[in-house]
Amino acid sequence: MMKLRLFTPGPTMVSPDALLEMAYPLDHHRTSGFKEMFKECTELLSYVYQTKAQPLILTGSGSAAMEGAILGCCKKDAKTLVCHSGKFGERWQKILKRFGLPHVEYKLEYGHGFRAEGVHDMLKKNPDVKAVIFVHSETSTCALSDAQGIAKVCRDHGALSLCDGITSIGTIPFKMDDWGIDVAVTGSQKALMLPPGLAFAAVSDRAWEVIESHDAPAFYNDLKAYRKSQKDNDVPWTPNNQLVKGLRYTLQQIKAEGIENVWARSARLAKATRAAAKALGLSIYAADPVDSVTGINIPAGVEDDKWRKTMRAKYGIHVAAGQGELKGKMIRLNHMGYVDEVDTVGAIAAMEWTLAEQGYKFDLGAGVTAFVKALATSSNA
Amino acid sequence: MMKLRLFTPGPTMVSPDALLEMAYPLDHHRTSGFKEMFKECTELLSYVYQTKAQPLILTGSGSAAMEGAILGCCKKDAKTLVCHSGKFGERWQKILKRFGLPHVEYKLEYGHGFRAEGVHDMLKKNPDVKAVIFVHSETSTCALSDAQGIAKVCRDHGALSLCDGITSIGTIPFKMDDWGIDVAVTGSQKALMLPPGLAFAAVSDRAWEVIESHDAPAFYNDLKAYRKSQKDNDVPWTPNNQLVKGLRYTLQQIKAEGIENVWARSARLAKATRAAAKALGLSIYAADPVDSVTGINIPAGVEDDKWRKTMRAKYGIHVAAGQGELKGKMIRLNHMGYVDEVDTVGAIAAMEWTLAEQGYKFDLGAGVTAFVKALATSSNA
Repeated sequence: MMKLRLFTPGPTMVSPDALLEMAYPLDHHRTSGFKEMFKECTELLSYVYQTKAQPLILTGSGSAAMEGAILGCCKKDAKTLVCHSGKFGERWQKILKRFGLPHVEYKLEYGHGFRAEGVHDMLKKNPDVKAVIFVHSETSTCALSDAQGIAKVCRDHGALSLCDGITSIGTIPFKMDDWGIDVAVTGSQKALMLPPGLAFAAVSDRAWEVIESHDAPAFYNDLKAYRKSQKDNDVPWTPNNQLVKGLRYTLQQIKAEGIENVWARSARLAKATRAAAKALGLSIYAADPVDSVTGINIPAGVEDDKWRKTMRAKYGIHVAAGQGELKGKMIRLNHMGYVDEVDTVGAIAAMEWTLAEQGYKFDLGAGVTAFVKALATSSNA
Repeated sequence: MMKLRLFTPGPTMVSPDALLEMAYPLDHHRTSGFKEMFKECTELLSYVYQTKAQPLILTGSGSAAMEGAILGCCKKDAKTLVCHSGKFGERWQKILKRFGLPHVEYKLEYGHGFRAEGVHDMLKKNPDVKAVIFVHSETSTCALSDAQGIAKVCRDHGALSLCDGITSIGTIPFKMDDWGIDVAVTGSQKALMLPPGLAFAAVSDRAWEVIESHDAPAFYNDLKAYRKSQKDNDVPWTPNNQLVKGLRYTLQQIKAEGIENVWARSARLAKATRAAAKALGLSIYAADPVDSVTGINIPAGVEDDKWRKTMRAKYGIHVAAGQGELKGKMIRLNHMGYVDEVDTVGAIAAMEWTLAEQGYKFDLGAGVTAFVKALATSSNA
């Protein structure tokens, strides 16, 4: 018997009921029933994004929405500031480079998040910047940036803010309209508790002005085409009707739980996981840890591959390795979506058993005890 | 009780067992198990395409593969010949226009397929053409082009042939290598019996030479990036693991049935449907009808919307309307994928009942009789 629990920061776990929802007979997307479902998804996405904008639903991975956002908002004759301190920030820059779009980079050390002051200084030095790209939750380093502060600085400067919310939206506090974020993208396989295959982009009125002002070299991921179709609750290309069906279901669950409660759950899981790591003598990779996913440094004497593979083979706990140059340095443990305290305390236990197997010295039980204490709602003292 | 049968030429029907296959717990895509599944899918796709090339698996609709094929094969400094006589041929031209790529068009009347001689003449007139785009099965008009003949003409001319096989591959005879086709694209929601969300592109060695010779303005649908990842049975962006799981299942079914038997089934269904239409006094829209989908002209006195809506509401038979300017002129009945004789004779019966309701004059039973006769394996005379 092997029960698999995905603790990867995407794809995250999909509930059996969401999977069954998607196993029902599927209908064509050009029907009134589907259009109603599509409309409901759009409205529920607005709720998750905390925006009056109507998020677009793209058939593709998160990178599809990233490409669409850049081609729409970063014009050939304008300059973009791209903030990066991890693999996903680097991917944004890669897209800018791929399309030969003028930009300046603002680079921080891995593990650090971006703050308002730093972005403000960069904008002062580069007054011609028209758009700022930043990653709210950098999944590769598990670090948090100050989305609210950065968005405000962008508004003050008159630049658009493009926020990669792929592992923040629906997990940690995110208020698109209150904060004044202009474009925010995410994907289906993180907080939205679905398989990969849908990407989302919400766009502010002032970002639409820029997007509508030019003909971007975009076809498949052309946000203008998506906006035009959305007026009729439709999409320009055949949508993944199976995932849209699942999406309505999981978004309804999020609405029923209440977005603030979802945010609070991730925060609890992250806090308790950090406490458990500390109790085991393990350190957190990020200087500015985010609550979506925790990156734990691999202690001296412990072999990365063996550690992760044993956790999966013996206990069904699949944690993520570090990405790129961080492979071998850290493991990552997801707190997004369909995951709770019980799952997570189990993951901590599996970490303990497998660390002990490799001769790592610590008090067996210290991790799970710290985890349990961190989340106890009443004291037994 | 309402049993829905999708007779739309995509999305087509998905079997309950394929839906359940996709309802099993999902695994992460960066595991040896997934990589094996991915490899098996690639091999089985080669079988369906009848090619030694390794088809790429993209997360997106068919249009994603169309964009990738054009950006890779149609260079800024070369000329493309685009053949169009329907909505999908027009979409290919739209992509060329969107990216400002030089091209000449070869347009035929709707309902007509392209032949080798016509393409040969166009190439003679335009000796600088480096790539030819054509739609094998034009879904909007239900017309067939001569893929084998066109591919040969392209080879003789030294131009690449780009074939839209979205509603041909896996349905009607298609032999990529034998015919010498250079790029062929399709999608998951047609013959492959899955929901929409995956696109496929198979590329010949000589097409790869062109694609690798330049840096196309492509990111999300960059075939080069997909090729690079494929060597490790991986993809550049997070794949839809749910659909890949379903894909292995449905491709195994196709392999078990035998591709020639699948082709023969579509041919039988199309032949019998045309016979039924004729017996009902109805005419076929296409001058060169294809066996993937049959387009039937709406007779005088019959209201399109009412006809289709009644078929669906009373009998669960969802046929497609005409696309664009063909709306109101024809209905389309699918023969791709998970559909058989029993389903289709039921669709003919529903056509009869609903035609009779609108006062259309014909002999009740003539359609189903012709259908049954067309497919009888022995005579009762």
